[in-house]
Amino acid sequence: MSADKFAVIRKSAYEANIRLPKLGLILFTFGNVSVADRNLGMFAIKPSGVSYDELSPESMVVVDFDGKVIDGKLRPSSDTLTHAVLYKKWTNIGSIVHTHSTYATAWAQSLRDIPIYGTTHADHLTCDIPCASPMDDNMIQGNYEHETGNQIINCMNWKRLDYGEVEMILVGNHGPFTWGKTADKAVYNSAVLEELAEMAFLTEKINPDAKRMKESLIRKHFERKHGPGSYYGQ
Amino acid sequence: MSADKFAVIRKSAYEANIRLPKLGLILFTFGNVSVADRNLGMFAIKPSGVSYDELSPESMVVVDFDGKVIDGKLRPSSDTLTHAVLYKKWTNIGSIVHTHSTYATAWAQSLRDIPIYGTTHADHLTCDIPCASPMDDNMIQGNYEHETGNQIINCMNWKRLDYGEVEMILVGNHGPFTWGKTADKAVYNSAVLEELAEMAFLTEKINPDAKRMKESLIRKHFERKHGPGSYYGQ
Amino acid sequence: MSADKFAVIRKSAYEANIRLPKLGLILFTFGNVSVADRNLGMFAIKPSGVSYDELSPESMVVVDFDGKVIDGKLRPSSDTLTHAVLYKKWTNIGSIVHTHSTYATAWAQSLRDIPIYGTTHADHLTCDIPCASPMDDNMIQGNYEHETGNQIINCMNWKRLDYGEVEMILVGNHGPFTWGKTADKAVYNSAVLEELAEMAFLTEKINPDAKRMKESLIRKHFERKHGPGSYYGQ
Amino acid sequence: MSADKFAVIRKSAYEANIRLPKLGLILFTFGNVSVADRNLGMFAIKPSGVSYDELSPESMVVVDFDGKVIDGKLRPSSDTLTHAVLYKKWTNIGSIVHTHSTYATAWAQSLRDIPIYGTTHADHLTCDIPCASPMDDNMIQGNYEHETGNQIINCMNWKRLDYGEVEMILVGNHGPFTWGKTADKAVYNSAVLEELAEMAFLTEKINPDAKRMKESLIRKHFERKHGPGSYYGQ
Repeated sequence: MSADKFAVIRKSAYEANIRLPKLGLILFTFGNVSVADRNLGMFAIKPSGVSYDELSPESMVVVDFDGKVIDGKLRPSSDTLTHAVLYKKWTNIGSIVHTHSTYATAWAQSLRDIPIYGTTHADHLTCDIPCASPMDDNMIQGNYEHETGNQIINCMNWKRLDYGEVEMILVGNHGPFTWGKTADKAVYNSAVLEELAEMAFLTEKINPDAKRMKESLIRKHFERKHGPGSYYGQ
Repeated sequence: MSADKFAVIRKSAYEANIRLPKLGLILFTFGNVSVADRNLGMFAIKPSGVSYDELSPESMVVVDFDGKVIDGKLRPSSDTLTHAVLYKKWTNIGSIVHTHSTYATAWAQSLRDIPIYGTTHADHLTCDIPCASPMDDNMIQGNYEHETGNQIINCMNWKRLDYGEVEMILVGNHGPFTWGKTADKAVYNSAVLEELAEMAFLTEKINPDAKRMKESLIRKHFERKHGPGSYYGQ
Repeated sequence: MSADKFAVIRKSAYEANIRLPKLGLILFTFGNVSVADRNLGMFAIKPSGVSYDELSPESMVVVDFDGKVIDGKLRPSSDTLTHAVLYKKWTNIGSIVHTHSTYATAWAQSLRDIPIYGTTHADHLTCDIPCASPMDDNMIQGNYEHETGNQIINCMNWKRLDYGEVEMILVGNHGPFTWGKTADKAVYNSAVLEELAEMAFLTEKINPDAKRMKESLIRKHFERKHGPGSYYGQ
Repeated sequence: MSADKFAVIRKSAYEANIRLPKLGLILFTFGNVSVADRNLGMFAIKPSGVSYDELSPESMVVVDFDGKVIDGKLRPSSDTLTHAVLYKKWTNIGSIVHTHSTYATAWAQSLRDIPIYGTTHADHLTCDIPCASPMDDNMIQGNYEHETGNQIINCMNWKRLDYGEVEMILVGNHGPFTWGKTADKAVYNSAVLEELAEMAFLTEKINPDAKRMKESLIRKHFERKHGPGSYYGQ
């Protein structure tokens, strides 16, 4: 199989990965982006433990949706199986981002959903940002990264959330995962999540009795940007 | 009508918009500046959802004070009608800025006025920074952006504030709006508001019993910079 | 009187002023540095309300220790009389810095001294950083900036602090003033104060029962850097 | 003894030192890195009180493991004896870093261990980050920097921690020390510690009832990166 067919997703994954430190979402190697090619049924992902300065499109590792390495000289991110599970189940997503960004990770460590306190949040999703519970010990001791993907999907299903509308989640005690149809959107979602996490933290400190925003305002703002009557953007 | 007559406000709006990310007040496209020409009865505003990197003077959209697009190839900011209402009612302002800056937005989400705790605040205004209540559901479901403008004006009137003295407000659950005679002043006010919001947050965390500054000191600092006996600046 | 004799303090004041925004201590024009020439009995200070980008050595205003402008085309900082009072009373200082840096100002707004919680603090001074009370109304309505200088001196005297050992103070509801023998030291003290203010804030949030550091450790650290047996530096 | 034999550790110490301000871990001269040559039984360390801008490989001071200066024109860091004690006792470390980074120092001032709240922490160590108690007065008044080294070692021993697994500690009321086999690792550990300290602070503010992460998850994450079955990195 010629490596040429992977050039597009490798370039896209490389460019998305190097945006993470520029957006202040990554310390050292604490994160990774993958980009999928749905026709090939494969994705390109950051190699494990390699500094963002040293990445190149060629260093991205190509993996199939079962997590099998197809092409690349390096070992893929240790979180690769989590990405694979999500791509396999959620057939409309094209990119996944995982970071340990400061505020989002603090919420994950707090084991709390991030309440929807304002329109900045509602411009992107209409519910609290979910925090998946830490896994049972047998899942942790089993195929851990694979089970992390399952835990994310189970949490979304249990809360009846649509992965096409809610493109971000916290994994309890771990950190945030975001996704989207494109790499741009998945990276964008990571930065938005970090900002929402900081704003929600501050909101509760300023007013310990702060309430979730009311439903009518949530709906209005989400529908400005999304859905049939939207009028945001070009 | 020749587009040339819009060149000045387009350039001014463009330059003011691109200052927002440099001042750390904007993530992605979360904000907008407009600049009015009072003779024309029109203002230039950022196009909706366009990245700050991709803006140009030509991309600014010219709109009249009823919110009707007069000139420009792109769709104007989704907040355009809020700007239009304010320009129509407040005949002495020349520019309006809306951001989702982190601390100011957190106060807006907390539904609290920002108390006047120090001279940094009193150098700019003599009262708490007002937070307008979230709108009633019928306003939200009606002409939302237009009603946002009305809500701002009603809050100012109800609190008996003069828009020429108090050039900033929080819209509850949403975020800050600032204005001024010039684009420079309106942008300046946005950065000042963000700083005051952070300082007030910290003040309350350091001393939960912190009190508003006394009136004599508020008056003194405001009058140093404003009014007939002012002696600040050149 | 030839302006040449002021060239040294003008250059020094200019260079010190432009360091403030680089150190993150200043938003817009919220601060000023002055540098004194003890032989001339005068100091050079930032002009009022002029942006840091537009400063030059020539724009610095030369003032005597009674606050009378001796040389310069612009109006001096509105805080000039505060500087003058301090230079007149404290005959060993050569430079004064005033900022509205975020954390130090929040402590000033909280009307609290900053407790000495660690060796970073004790490396610079052996007591809590004092916060002078807000002035009485008659002082505020009188010669305000002059009285601000008096309030600083009175607070230091009342707390029996030596201005040669304690080179920083908060003015309640206002913000920090620092000083030193040289402009470098006075600017250094402003940055140190801001760091100590942030660390003390965090310390109390992490441990609400945090205690001041014990005296033996305070003494040891201060004496490492200062006094006859010091062994810090070259 | 020819100075040439010190060229490698001097260059390495120099390069590690100048990384500290770039990583945001240092204000002015508040920190130091040393790098050891185990064959020579010596280490190169930052000179005391010299600005990071003015450092060069040649300015690094070479000291033996008893703290005696062997080569160099400048006085070594005032913390040199602490480094010496650690190198002498812990024969497998090659570099030591000391900073006063903001969040880690705030925890040190709080006299609290940093609880292990998430996988970011467990990726690096499996226990809370220890905070050594402030020393007794006789230790403070004795050979202070030497005793600081002893206090670190005693704390590690008392808590039964292996310096090869736990490469970071807080010294109560003072600040963080980190170490590693290489300068890169020791500097890396300082930046990681600062990030963990900020995340833990936020976690407790978001959820005052936050619990330490469970043991099974701690083990899993540590073993992903360390030990015989590790699969992180290349």
